[in-house]
Amino acid sequence: MALSEFDIIRRFFDRPQVAAGRSDVLLGIGDDAAVVTVPDDHDLVLCMDTLVAGVHFPEDTSPGSIGHKALAVNLSDLAAMGAEPAWFTLSVTLPHADEDWLAAFAQDMFRLADHYRVQLVGGDVTRGPLSVTVQAHGLVPRGGALRRAGAAVGDHIYVTGTLGDAGLALRLVSQPAPALRQRLDYPSPRVESGLALRGLASAVIDISDGLLADLGHLLEDRGLGAMLEADDLPRSAGFRALAGTTESKKLYYELPLTAGDDYELCFTIPSSRCGEAEAALADLPGGCTCVGVIESEPGIRCRHRDDSTWQPDGGQGYQHFRNDNG
Amino acid sequence: MALSEFDIIRRFFDRPQVAAGRSDVLLGIGDDAAVVTVPDDHDLVLCMDTLVAGVHFPEDTSPGSIGHKALAVNLSDLAAMGAEPAWFTLSVTLPHADEDWLAAFAQDMFRLADHYRVQLVGGDVTRGPLSVTVQAHGLVPRGGALRRAGAAVGDHIYVTGTLGDAGLALRLVSQPAPALRQRLDYPSPRVESGLALRGLASAVIDISDGLLADLGHLLEDRGLGAMLEADDLPRSAGFRALAGTTESKKLYYELPLTAGDDYELCFTIPSSRCGEAEAALADLPGGCTCVGVIESEPGIRCRHRDDSTWQPDGGQGYQHFRNDNG
Repeated sequence: MALSEFDIIRRFFDRPQVAAGRSDVLLGIGDDAAVVTVPDDHDLVLCMDTLVAGVHFPEDTSPGSIGHKALAVNLSDLAAMGAEPAWFTLSVTLPHADEDWLAAFAQDMFRLADHYRVQLVGGDVTRGPLSVTVQAHGLVPRGGALRRAGAAVGDHIYVTGTLGDAGLALRLVSQPAPALRQRLDYPSPRVESGLALRGLASAVIDISDGLLADLGHLLEDRGLGAMLEADDLPRSAGFRALAGTTESKKLYYELPLTAGDDYELCFTIPSSRCGEAEAALADLPGGCTCVGVIESEPGIRCRHRDDSTWQPDGGQGYQHFRNDNG
Repeated sequence: MALSEFDIIRRFFDRPQVAAGRSDVLLGIGDDAAVVTVPDDHDLVLCMDTLVAGVHFPEDTSPGSIGHKALAVNLSDLAAMGAEPAWFTLSVTLPHADEDWLAAFAQDMFRLADHYRVQLVGGDVTRGPLSVTVQAHGLVPRGGALRRAGAAVGDHIYVTGTLGDAGLALRLVSQPAPALRQRLDYPSPRVESGLALRGLASAVIDISDGLLADLGHLLEDRGLGAMLEADDLPRSAGFRALAGTTESKKLYYELPLTAGDDYELCFTIPSSRCGEAEAALADLPGGCTCVGVIESEPGIRCRHRDDSTWQPDGGQGYQHFRNDNG
């Protein structure tokens, strides 16, 4: 049976989200646009990310993962601003109307949406090569958004969760590593951590392109640098088991610094408030780990426990058009 | 020279929009997300539309047209809500970083954006098959958004501008018809008309899928019908000159009813306020034309000046997945 664009929206996307039914949604799916109300004394935080098949996820990625991840990467951006997720819009472009695909995609997307009480209020379904764009909207108390700029010399550098898992999963596509693959396919946006960092962090960014690249963004505006403790970078048990056994110890250091797709937060805390920040995040999913300190000398340096230091390369992260001759 | 995703954003998209520099943008392009402030006593209106090459525009469409149209179709949705455009986000997926393409795309998109003082605040640039997604944000006084639902029996049906031009341009791809092609490639969102209809229109929708299909959406929730005056449908001079000479008189009636891509507004006005509405729109771009009346009998009927009536088919409009067996 042929499914129209309207059928797809009705059957898979315009459904009551019990957990996310929000009184601030005045008009949801079904008109030319949605209408929502932003509470007084709050600012609105907006972000948009697109995932393209074969570029942002392997072609064999399950539809459930794609649905989860398309929303998760945007919630991660909201988390980096200290914003509370509120609403999102969704554009799905797909080659044909596959009901099983759509059902699995919607199920995992809505599971994450319901968890954070973020409501789908509109979007678009079109035919074409597979890609998914989500725009997420979050709320912060007026003037309270966390930013990338703000780090100062002496601030401690932290990350949530563990690093390199998603990157290692991508290297090990032929090898079963379900825990790592789960990290690649179902990243956990650190929404709670972002909220806890309001008023505490001097700068925050989410790690989508790798720690070096994203920490670099955080430093570049101010011409600052950083010293990272390479042995203290948080690595999961699955990562530690496999990164030592695959190629060499090289991955053990390289991936937590350069691999993207972890969607952890990287943030800085003035040294006088580190205890407070650590306590605030201790019991939240992912916790946090101090991985270094902000220095006045530009560039990112790494140090081993034996005090030997080196300047890592590959700090550019993932760049979509790097190999173009455009 | 290779252009990174960041280079592209910096060179083509993160530029001062003189005309649209808005004090309600607290943080624009360059962080994990943008931060804006919604004025008290206003609701926020959100819409998102994706254009895919070969689906929403012919493959030979100029980059300038794609940039204009991606924003215009979203401003048209805001217009249908009576919303004043404020901000937008943009996701561009393109096969390779072509500087000429990007420059032309950005130039025409920003020309339209500046005209309506709508500011680009964020988005994404990714590699993949060409498509463009825009999310537009508009503002309405609290509780004042125009909606699709609200038409009542006896309300007069109006459209802005002229109908069928874009549809005829698509039929005439091999024949030069610059005025019609301009309508297809550079649609004019009826922003001013939408604002003028606040408090006047009982229902509004924008015509993206054809008058029959979109008027159908406006009627369906209430189980109402409509009688359209087929000879009164507004047709441009270019349309009239060509629609009589190409195939047959058939296109003359068919295209204004069924062809999409005109992005005019269709709206209903209680009969007691028609004079007021006509006066309000008379001097705005596109003006307005009364094309029929709401009736209690479901379905859309058409009438000629000689009082003969018929029931048009093809009222489904454009459906992306119509020919799928999904």
